[in-house]
Amino acid sequence: MDRIYVFFVGSAGSGKTYLTKAFSDYLEFKRIDHIIVNLDPGAGNLPYSPDIDVREWFSIEDVMEKYNVGPNGAQIIASDLIATKVDDIIDEIDLYNATYVLMDTPGQMELFTLRASSEVLIGILGRNNCVSVFLFDPVVSQQAPGFLSLVFLYSSAIMRLNIPQIPVLSKVDILPEHTVKKILEWSKSPETLHDSISRERGLSPDLFNLLYDLGLFRPLIPVSSKTGDGMDDIYEQIQEIYYGGEDIERILF
Amino acid sequence: MDRIYVFFVGSAGSGKTYLTKAFSDYLEFKRIDHIIVNLDPGAGNLPYSPDIDVREWFSIEDVMEKYNVGPNGAQIIASDLIATKVDDIIDEIDLYNATYVLMDTPGQMELFTLRASSEVLIGILGRNNCVSVFLFDPVVSQQAPGFLSLVFLYSSAIMRLNIPQIPVLSKVDILPEHTVKKILEWSKSPETLHDSISRERGLSPDLFNLLYDLGLFRPLIPVSSKTGDGMDDIYEQIQEIYYGGEDIERILF
Repeated sequence: MDRIYVFFVGSAGSGKTYLTKAFSDYLEFKRIDHIIVNLDPGAGNLPYSPDIDVREWFSIEDVMEKYNVGPNGAQIIASDLIATKVDDIIDEIDLYNATYVLMDTPGQMELFTLRASSEVLIGILGRNNCVSVFLFDPVVSQQAPGFLSLVFLYSSAIMRLNIPQIPVLSKVDILPEHTVKKILEWSKSPETLHDSISRERGLSPDLFNLLYDLGLFRPLIPVSSKTGDGMDDIYEQIQEIYYGGEDIERILF
Repeated sequence: MDRIYVFFVGSAGSGKTYLTKAFSDYLEFKRIDHIIVNLDPGAGNLPYSPDIDVREWFSIEDVMEKYNVGPNGAQIIASDLIATKVDDIIDEIDLYNATYVLMDTPGQMELFTLRASSEVLIGILGRNNCVSVFLFDPVVSQQAPGFLSLVFLYSSAIMRLNIPQIPVLSKVDILPEHTVKKILEWSKSPETLHDSISRERGLSPDLFNLLYDLGLFRPLIPVSSKTGDGMDDIYEQIQEIYYGGEDIERILF
């Protein structure tokens, strides 16, 4: 049976860990075999019990002490150390008979996307078996420039990870309904976003259309880890990417 | 006399702290009054003595203890706490007679650019008095997709901070000369980057040209904090932005 690796990726505080749990609960409910891997050496209390946990090998506190660095330096070193543990992680994954392997990535997105560990890990697991759920932070997304800023961040992750990505609007339960509607509208229509943003900045409408045409700009799935909204849609998109046949090109990113 | 706030912004490990020091040394040499503000609550040992330091008010360790969170949660909280100390920071800055205020930003870029503290701080200091030096990580920049990923990260920061930005290629002393040349060539010519990247990904040349036309893609200044290379160029670009008259529009980002 094929195994699919689902990476939850997004900026600090966007809700990766709780979404990992919510999606796990959803798979549990559907009786789909899966495990959770915590790749975040700096995680505090997790709301789920990881089946595999990089903190077994090292934690930020250990690294601070061992390398005599501050918390920042330790986070960089710890993220890079993941690359040295990839064989161990895969050995542990192989002990399970899981169809889905959910990967909760390090708190700060750039420590995962921009550093070697993601490249090494995805390279070994195989790009064709990996997909990423990319979280748009609900607070930053409320303003048009903030939303566009996240579109670029998403593009940045696409270039770097080079695996199919499913963009979601996180924590919709904390936003008023009309705000969710507005953000989803931006994500569906480059013209609407351009209209909202051009009052402030002199950006060309071509930019928005081009990003859209290239698939760097796609309709967001609204999700809530609290209510479970959107889990079905994430699941369906993963299915479509892996088993949708001719559709795969269309949703490559 | 006008006061200019220079923010050093870039992904974790790109070399912000050492560049802050190198630029300070350069200003010192030119006998230009300046101070350094450390905005990074998670900094370890700094290579300079900050005139103002957010760690006076709180550190990651304090926050972990006080809020009972792990290192990740603490970094988010600490970054957000900066917003509550902006008045104190400005009061302290006012005690100095500095023309340049160098701001060393939090280790993880997204903790600064995507969260409230940058918005509040820049809003109060005044967008017109602020400029950012954006560091392209030399390791990530070596491969064309990595470089493009950083171009998008740069675009993301531009959208979010909305102040003029000066992009630099950091730590050129660790790269072979021909690699530096290649990266600079990409940054000067959208066609060259497209040629290097299109072998791997199906991206349209229009994207590169458009980003270039919008100023989201600009020639990088090669810099080294070790040799001091490029400090003159950064200084000149800041001068051009603030005193270049008609040129200001051209280099808005």
